[in-house]
Amino acid sequence: MIKVNDPALKSWVDVPGDSDFPIQNLPFGIFKTDNLPPVAGVAIGNYVLNLAYVHERGLLHGLELTPGIFNQLYLNDFFRLGRKKVREVRDRISELLQIGNDELKSATTALDVALVSMYKVQMLMPVQVSNYTDFYSSEEHATNVGSMFRDPKNALLPNWKHLPVGYHGRASSIVVSGTSIRRPKGQIKIAGTDTPVFSASRKLDFELEVAFITCSETLLGESIAVEDASNHIIGLVLFNDWSARDIQQWEYVPLGPFLGKNFASTISPWVVTLDALEPFRVEGPKQVPPVLPYLNISGKNNYDIMLEVLLTTGAGEAVVISRTNFKYMYWNIFQQLAHHTVNGCNIQVGDIYASGTISGSSSDSYGSMLELSSNGQKPLVINNAEERTFLCDGDTVIIKAYANNGNVRIGFGECRGTILPAIEH
Amino acid sequence: MIKVNDPALKSWVDVPGDSDFPIQNLPFGIFKTDNLPPVAGVAIGNYVLNLAYVHERGLLHGLELTPGIFNQLYLNDFFRLGRKKVREVRDRISELLQIGNDELKSATTALDVALVSMYKVQMLMPVQVSNYTDFYSSEEHATNVGSMFRDPKNALLPNWKHLPVGYHGRASSIVVSGTSIRRPKGQIKIAGTDTPVFSASRKLDFELEVAFITCSETLLGESIAVEDASNHIIGLVLFNDWSARDIQQWEYVPLGPFLGKNFASTISPWVVTLDALEPFRVEGPKQVPPVLPYLNISGKNNYDIMLEVLLTTGAGEAVVISRTNFKYMYWNIFQQLAHHTVNGCNIQVGDIYASGTISGSSSDSYGSMLELSSNGQKPLVINNAEERTFLCDGDTVIIKAYANNGNVRIGFGECRGTILPAIEH
Repeated sequence: MIKVNDPALKSWVDVPGDSDFPIQNLPFGIFKTDNLPPVAGVAIGNYVLNLAYVHERGLLHGLELTPGIFNQLYLNDFFRLGRKKVREVRDRISELLQIGNDELKSATTALDVALVSMYKVQMLMPVQVSNYTDFYSSEEHATNVGSMFRDPKNALLPNWKHLPVGYHGRASSIVVSGTSIRRPKGQIKIAGTDTPVFSASRKLDFELEVAFITCSETLLGESIAVEDASNHIIGLVLFNDWSARDIQQWEYVPLGPFLGKNFASTISPWVVTLDALEPFRVEGPKQVPPVLPYLNISGKNNYDIMLEVLLTTGAGEAVVISRTNFKYMYWNIFQQLAHHTVNGCNIQVGDIYASGTISGSSSDSYGSMLELSSNGQKPLVINNAEERTFLCDGDTVIIKAYANNGNVRIGFGECRGTILPAIEH
Repeated sequence: MIKVNDPALKSWVDVPGDSDFPIQNLPFGIFKTDNLPPVAGVAIGNYVLNLAYVHERGLLHGLELTPGIFNQLYLNDFFRLGRKKVREVRDRISELLQIGNDELKSATTALDVALVSMYKVQMLMPVQVSNYTDFYSSEEHATNVGSMFRDPKNALLPNWKHLPVGYHGRASSIVVSGTSIRRPKGQIKIAGTDTPVFSASRKLDFELEVAFITCSETLLGESIAVEDASNHIIGLVLFNDWSARDIQQWEYVPLGPFLGKNFASTISPWVVTLDALEPFRVEGPKQVPPVLPYLNISGKNNYDIMLEVLLTTGAGEAVVISRTNFKYMYWNIFQQLAHHTVNGCNIQVGDIYASGTISGSSSDSYGSMLELSSNGQKPLVINNAEERTFLCDGDTVIIKAYANNGNVRIGFGECRGTILPAIEH
């Protein structure tokens, strides 16, 4: 049997050359159509394989999946089966979709029920988010922000290279790609004044991030060893941690970001499995000073994933405003999870752990408007026509990502949101 | 019909004079026994009224409750019915338990199934915690901490009197009273050294807090007006936000507390309804400077609830180490909820919003060991025998609370936890 990540593998489903979803990817998501209630699916080319239907037809026999496991609003119960079982399902789907395999076609007279055109589906939240944590693990981003708001000579705080700094965010306000984002209102303090005013945010921003999702439940008091962390992570999604910089700036001392962040975060709908990303593992930056033993892990623990941010202003074309790579992250996802649990904090299925803003070292690789425009000092010019410091109403931000090692390219789809004006009242 | 909060009301169930649970209280919780799976109950004296049984016997007829609403692991679905419906249920239970009412007795031959001795039950988490936020709303606490860690002359930061400062905490690690608390390990930095070490926390602390629980779901983008906030809050519980001060101190800049807090928080099992607390509403401290209009609410919006912290060291007697009152809070719960949602952040049923540490103005009214011992400088003497700066293994912290206006006394039960030694490895 051909291995599921083999670049030579081809599907009998037509997959365009630039597709994010070749047979080597097979990410999981939840979708619905006009005729179909929410069910689990797998992306293949421009189609979504209806897992509920495939399961009903008996094509996943031998995998001991409970009936209805794919007829749910979220993937939590499926992911709870663990990495090994999810891998078996992905392996079997790969088999079903390979050229030469006609099991699916012969099991149904309604192939369009099993394989739904992506243009006919609405993607929903893949998981019910149990808990959400945001890290701050890009050295370039932390340095940029520290330089702007504190001291360029000591941009990184003393703890930064010793532990992956993180904080808790709001789980309830994480939405799926395509959901419009309402400009938040709140307290902001105008420079040179003494008292805050109540206003719509004037410094609305995006943050380019990648997040991992957990597939296990630990008991309070247990820790996850850094070498074991990969067994608790099912896959990755793209993440936009929308931020109102003016609200954040006034509120965040001393307990951290709150209303400047919790009005919304957007995730991409397809959970790209760590299994699919296995060929794209690379070594991360050398960590100096050396980390404490509980964070020590050798080998290829970063992922080579190209990241792009596109901006559409009103009627204009989408323009790439930033390009960077997930591989530059100083702290990797295994260190993040080991750190998060070293004190006995328990994890749950469907937790989302975001990377923090990902910035590269050059000014066209920054992961936020805050950095791209030097906190509004240097406007970006879009399409040689418009300027942007922060986001305007009607702007659309799209994050895209793909891994490409020359042999195969697997993508993440989109993480998209359009800014709506603040509610008047 | 006698009103449910009338001090003259008496139950046919025997209620000792010092009970937390007279007929004027009737808090909701989830309990189980050796013979009974988890079900919803109401505390009355030293008994728990089995709501599932009462509902099955048809004694809640006319209230249009779905079958099985009380046979669940959590109260979320019940609370989701909203304040009005929960009030109707409480009113009906009051009627059933009043002297002269024999409906319950005549509907059953097994009164000990309907009314279970409190000594035979195990209390469980009352709600599945959807999201958890912690505020920082006691002026005395914020002043004490600001003086110790920043500047005694400017102890309160500039934003503190303009908005209820808050941050997100970890929902997964909230446990019910009685659960033992494992001393956390993590990175700490010893004064005078350059690099952190990995160690069990040496500065383990409690935090005396009160939390409210929400009973509604709002849409992303919606705000809750401060005058409407009470319709979204079902009741209060006691809350101990265990804290590892040394871990917190090293990690918390710039994004706030994380592993220093998320190893555990404890709540009391009985949700005391805002309806039961209605007679104990009082005016809060005058807010100067005036708050912005969206936070402006007049009248009695604080609650007069006496709070006590008791400490048991090993084999000793429990000793009261702090006494204060919830009525001193600078920011009230309605302002907290209005602020939290003013940016459009959505709330969910079963969210927990804690007050932040509650301290009074005198040194015997502080809500944490950090304050009681001046960050370890002035040990507390316990039972004229032992000294404590922070918590030792084997120590038990118990928070108690009651409201007493001279006519009636309603209590919260206990919020208790015992410190276990850190795991060796």
